[in-house]
Amino acid sequence: MSPAEPSRNFASDNVEGASPEILAALTRANQGAAASYGADDGTGRVESRLRELFERDDLSVLLVSSGTAANALGLASLTPPWGSVLCHADAHVLNDECGAPEFFGDGLKVMPLGGASSRIDIAALRRAAVRDRGDVHAQQPACVTVTQATEGGTVYSLEALDAIGALCREQGLRLHMDGARFANALASLDCTPARMTWRAGVDVLSFGATKDGALGVEAIVCFDPALTQSLHFRRKRGGHLASKMRFLAAQMEAWLEDDLWLRNARHANAMAARLAKGLAALPGAALVDPVEANLVFVRMPGEVARGLLEQGFRFYPDRRDPRAVRLVTSFRTSPEGVDALVAAAIDLVASRP
Amino acid sequence: MSPAEPSRNFASDNVEGASPEILAALTRANQGAAASYGADDGTGRVESRLRELFERDDLSVLLVSSGTAANALGLASLTPPWGSVLCHADAHVLNDECGAPEFFGDGLKVMPLGGASSRIDIAALRRAAVRDRGDVHAQQPACVTVTQATEGGTVYSLEALDAIGALCREQGLRLHMDGARFANALASLDCTPARMTWRAGVDVLSFGATKDGALGVEAIVCFDPALTQSLHFRRKRGGHLASKMRFLAAQMEAWLEDDLWLRNARHANAMAARLAKGLAALPGAALVDPVEANLVFVRMPGEVARGLLEQGFRFYPDRRDPRAVRLVTSFRTSPEGVDALVAAAIDLVASRP
Amino acid sequence: MSPAEPSRNFASDNVEGASPEILAALTRANQGAAASYGADDGTGRVESRLRELFERDDLSVLLVSSGTAANALGLASLTPPWGSVLCHADAHVLNDECGAPEFFGDGLKVMPLGGASSRIDIAALRRAAVRDRGDVHAQQPACVTVTQATEGGTVYSLEALDAIGALCREQGLRLHMDGARFANALASLDCTPARMTWRAGVDVLSFGATKDGALGVEAIVCFDPALTQSLHFRRKRGGHLASKMRFLAAQMEAWLEDDLWLRNARHANAMAARLAKGLAALPGAALVDPVEANLVFVRMPGEVARGLLEQGFRFYPDRRDPRAVRLVTSFRTSPEGVDALVAAAIDLVASRP
Amino acid sequence: MSPAEPSRNFASDNVEGASPEILAALTRANQGAAASYGADDGTGRVESRLRELFERDDLSVLLVSSGTAANALGLASLTPPWGSVLCHADAHVLNDECGAPEFFGDGLKVMPLGGASSRIDIAALRRAAVRDRGDVHAQQPACVTVTQATEGGTVYSLEALDAIGALCREQGLRLHMDGARFANALASLDCTPARMTWRAGVDVLSFGATKDGALGVEAIVCFDPALTQSLHFRRKRGGHLASKMRFLAAQMEAWLEDDLWLRNARHANAMAARLAKGLAALPGAALVDPVEANLVFVRMPGEVARGLLEQGFRFYPDRRDPRAVRLVTSFRTSPEGVDALVAAAIDLVASRP
Repeated sequence: MSPAEPSRNFASDNVEGASPEILAALTRANQGAAASYGADDGTGRVESRLRELFERDDLSVLLVSSGTAANALGLASLTPPWGSVLCHADAHVLNDECGAPEFFGDGLKVMPLGGASSRIDIAALRRAAVRDRGDVHAQQPACVTVTQATEGGTVYSLEALDAIGALCREQGLRLHMDGARFANALASLDCTPARMTWRAGVDVLSFGATKDGALGVEAIVCFDPALTQSLHFRRKRGGHLASKMRFLAAQMEAWLEDDLWLRNARHANAMAARLAKGLAALPGAALVDPVEANLVFVRMPGEVARGLLEQGFRFYPDRRDPRAVRLVTSFRTSPEGVDALVAAAIDLVASRP
Repeated sequence: MSPAEPSRNFASDNVEGASPEILAALTRANQGAAASYGADDGTGRVESRLRELFERDDLSVLLVSSGTAANALGLASLTPPWGSVLCHADAHVLNDECGAPEFFGDGLKVMPLGGASSRIDIAALRRAAVRDRGDVHAQQPACVTVTQATEGGTVYSLEALDAIGALCREQGLRLHMDGARFANALASLDCTPARMTWRAGVDVLSFGATKDGALGVEAIVCFDPALTQSLHFRRKRGGHLASKMRFLAAQMEAWLEDDLWLRNARHANAMAARLAKGLAALPGAALVDPVEANLVFVRMPGEVARGLLEQGFRFYPDRRDPRAVRLVTSFRTSPEGVDALVAAAIDLVASRP
Repeated sequence: MSPAEPSRNFASDNVEGASPEILAALTRANQGAAASYGADDGTGRVESRLRELFERDDLSVLLVSSGTAANALGLASLTPPWGSVLCHADAHVLNDECGAPEFFGDGLKVMPLGGASSRIDIAALRRAAVRDRGDVHAQQPACVTVTQATEGGTVYSLEALDAIGALCREQGLRLHMDGARFANALASLDCTPARMTWRAGVDVLSFGATKDGALGVEAIVCFDPALTQSLHFRRKRGGHLASKMRFLAAQMEAWLEDDLWLRNARHANAMAARLAKGLAALPGAALVDPVEANLVFVRMPGEVARGLLEQGFRFYPDRRDPRAVRLVTSFRTSPEGVDALVAAAIDLVASRP
Repeated sequence: MSPAEPSRNFASDNVEGASPEILAALTRANQGAAASYGADDGTGRVESRLRELFERDDLSVLLVSSGTAANALGLASLTPPWGSVLCHADAHVLNDECGAPEFFGDGLKVMPLGGASSRIDIAALRRAAVRDRGDVHAQQPACVTVTQATEGGTVYSLEALDAIGALCREQGLRLHMDGARFANALASLDCTPARMTWRAGVDVLSFGATKDGALGVEAIVCFDPALTQSLHFRRKRGGHLASKMRFLAAQMEAWLEDDLWLRNARHANAMAARLAKGLAALPGAALVDPVEANLVFVRMPGEVARGLLEQGFRFYPDRRDPRAVRLVTSFRTSPEGVDALVAAAIDLVASRP
């Protein structure tokens, strides 16, 4: 790819690389000796920064290198082996992690629930929360996990999160948030991180930087101090305690600095909105759901989708829905790239017999 | 620390950062879009390069971000849950991974064996290999793991590896190598990677770059194609399949380029030899074992060790042996740093009452 | 309960005790010393008997004390931790074993499929069998389990079993049969045990005696010799290798002697048919499914069900279906007991306003 | 074996069958319908009886069919996956359960300690209890398990148990007791069950009836109400919740009635003492340890041991100690059988060249 040419890759927000600021931070972090396994100053600074950002002095932070690890560790800390994790049927932890929650959770069960637009239906959640409680023959509802932003590119409203959080407290369930696209959701809701998490009842958050410009770092943010110790041991046992932790910390620190994380997310969201607007106007096309983050699911004529792929555009033609294509934007998606795709789609529609 | 001042940190080979060549490679790898989860070109090139380096067209390579993950995944692929992994009593997998092998191996057992200089005694191995075979009441000997270079800073000779490999084949055991310091051992033995691994009978190798100049990358090198598929699923379930794999691949590629890995290792070994020579000459001091890689275990008067720590030198005063200090050198250890420590020790000895 | 009064308990086939012949066998087995852990003569005789019965010289038999153990051990031997077990949505292994398959299978996934009358729909199975194959992000279809007779009281026809077996072979899946009510199914189909199992492609069978007159014994019947060794180790690790195995063997031997197992099952089936006939004739009542074994699911007016419970009859008023009651018959159910329930139901219907 | 001839089998206390009183109880328990899965009256009576016997109104009881299950479930309830269980090097849970504790404990570690006469050395325990505490790289000391009576046929004194219990409380460790031969130990110490368990600090006890006259039943006696719920779920997941629980309860109830359990144990102990006395007097023979329960470990000339085996006596010639034979007595061992073995040994010694 020539540097001048905009990227045609909309397959995922992990196909683009990292923000230059984050790469530069790695080089800075390379100076001198530093204690290993998270005892370095940089890791300490990240924890302080997140305590400030989330307005909680008692939260703990564990950096890991993948979202799957962050989710699986968090869920395992919240759910006994005989418990079940309630999630939406579209959830990444259910469909896309090859059983990592079951592995880290020593055989826990992940139970799908319905709900429009990839958001858990509160009534379905209420039914599942009370089902088989206390019955020794059934795995016990123990934890709810919400993905924010969702796998469908939608975002839970604060009211919806509050309702789920209240139900969890009422029923004695724990609440986990898969925030692989946390920044996109926050940019969309324009609220504080505290408001979207522990104030709504979240116990453990996967705070994902990888999809939003980092090379590979996610923070497990634990709002319940009683869980911290077990998370540390679980992380080590899982092979996720980095020896040269300074390089994870440096990524996270740079990502948070000067709101890079929010700027990246706002850009990605804006690109998705631009894409959605362009494609929704296409004859024969329709958005599956309102676009609230950086994912666009759109139904379009099959030959248009195929034509775009043939022209070198990259996206999943049948992700979650055989009739809809999924397009993902990132911090590096350019307006020119978006416009090129929309223009190509328009041409393809026009050239249909 | 002023840049001009040599590092006084001998605590571990993971307290120093990364080779500049590897950091530069990250920036290069950041260009353009790349397929995620290991489908990128860079990951493909790494596999090709390792096939060439290890002289085996059919090996497979799985990159992960930590040595604990590499070891635990490799051992799990070689050992059923009712099996035991035989290792030296000093082994990292036994003492320093918080049960990661047991976790990834679904409850396998790690069984310590004796042996001088951190090397498994072949007679002890032979006894353990046949003990309780076929007895349903006992976990079954299934796998042997050797650390090369060992946790004691020694190296298995090729003859010793051959003998262990032959015993494994004879007894139907699998052979794993923890190569967290593989480069140091190879530099020490001056043989080919093939000779030190599969030609001696190794089935799976943890090929560690992190301690030798990378930010955080290890290759699971699998010499048995029958295990490849299970390793891929295990890696994903373990949360160790990086989405932006290009950044792991770039580290590994740069590390192997122009023999950076061997140059780093030779340097670290040379610094350890220099340190060993200086300290062995100290009145009242004695090396625990011959120094064959980049670790120095030395017995010295307690007040000398304490004095060095007070002067800001960093090392473990009682690692593995309460009477011996452990000093570790790395690709970034300078002769000046080594000499400063030796000189300080000489002064401390001289000033003893 | 007076001995003269027929049992009003239709809650399950495990609420009645054991056949007298089996109790007598325990006393006989108590003579003299016997080798422990399955090395006794009785256990040997059981294996021989089952080889004869199933017409396979190379099958292996492992006795355990519960159906949950038999199922979980069998499934674990057939499915890797990253695999999924495909079953009907009504399956006991999915709903009623508190995650035992996940526990014994080190985090495998149990995936429900649809299908009328508690039988897996072959088209749904075909879709699930190929879904996500080879995709490292998804747990892999590895095993199918059928319950024969089903949890709904129906029975797979031989043709249906053949079709599932053929699909398994075609797709590289293993086939497990939960035979907690195997005898009832066999009595219903009136075929040979071989025909209903390995000739149809079954790899491992849970051959249940407990519900059919034993105190507590099930045989894991393994038709694939390659799995035998792992089953033995898994059984021991699971705490299911009985030290005084002679008492499990004696139950199984007596159960098989003189076709006691089939006589018990035929009786239970006949009682279920009698019950079904009586209840189906009730105004406002309807069988949910044809009654092919010893379970009757019947929809009846709520006040009739409540009235029966108030009169001391025992059954689940909302098992699997909130509108249907479940009634189970056993080797000890008497015609008088059945008739008493039917008569009471008729009275209750008649007395409705 | 003719009924008139005394048993020559000293291989284990599980080679003899069951007490007639217990078999009779099974027949009595077979009357009428009974709720399944432990909701029957008999199971309730057993719990009440054990609360009375152990003088604790708040203990809970879970019946299972094997000692391995009782131990593994108890240990799993007391130890997190990243914890270690400290035991004597002779412990059954370490050597003879094929990793059941690791399996049920999701990869916990079982750590052997030294100590004379199969009893944990308190100083060794103290060292192990503090080792690596809080170090995330090491599995954490979490639980101590003592076998009472020990695998060596010795018994912990009450003072020794108190000391271990006090150390556990001081160090925040849990205390488990493997009471596979609890009755033998109690008979030996002649104290109350409460004194030998929770008064000394025991949290969970495996209360074994199988070796002392039952067909196969053990009670997990849990003195910490906070653990009860998890034990119930773990038992079900482990396949150890018997459907026809009445038959486990009946065994336990009959075993406890009229002190049958203690009478059986006293008899077995007396037979062991008789055997020990006879063999200790043998020229060239020596007891390994004082005989305090129903196991005798004796060193004797190899040809004498071989001669006894040739004459049809059964025992392990090299159990735990290659130079010592192990002889086990049971509730059914007869004085004539003991005397016959001693006489045969005397003859063999006399006939040595």
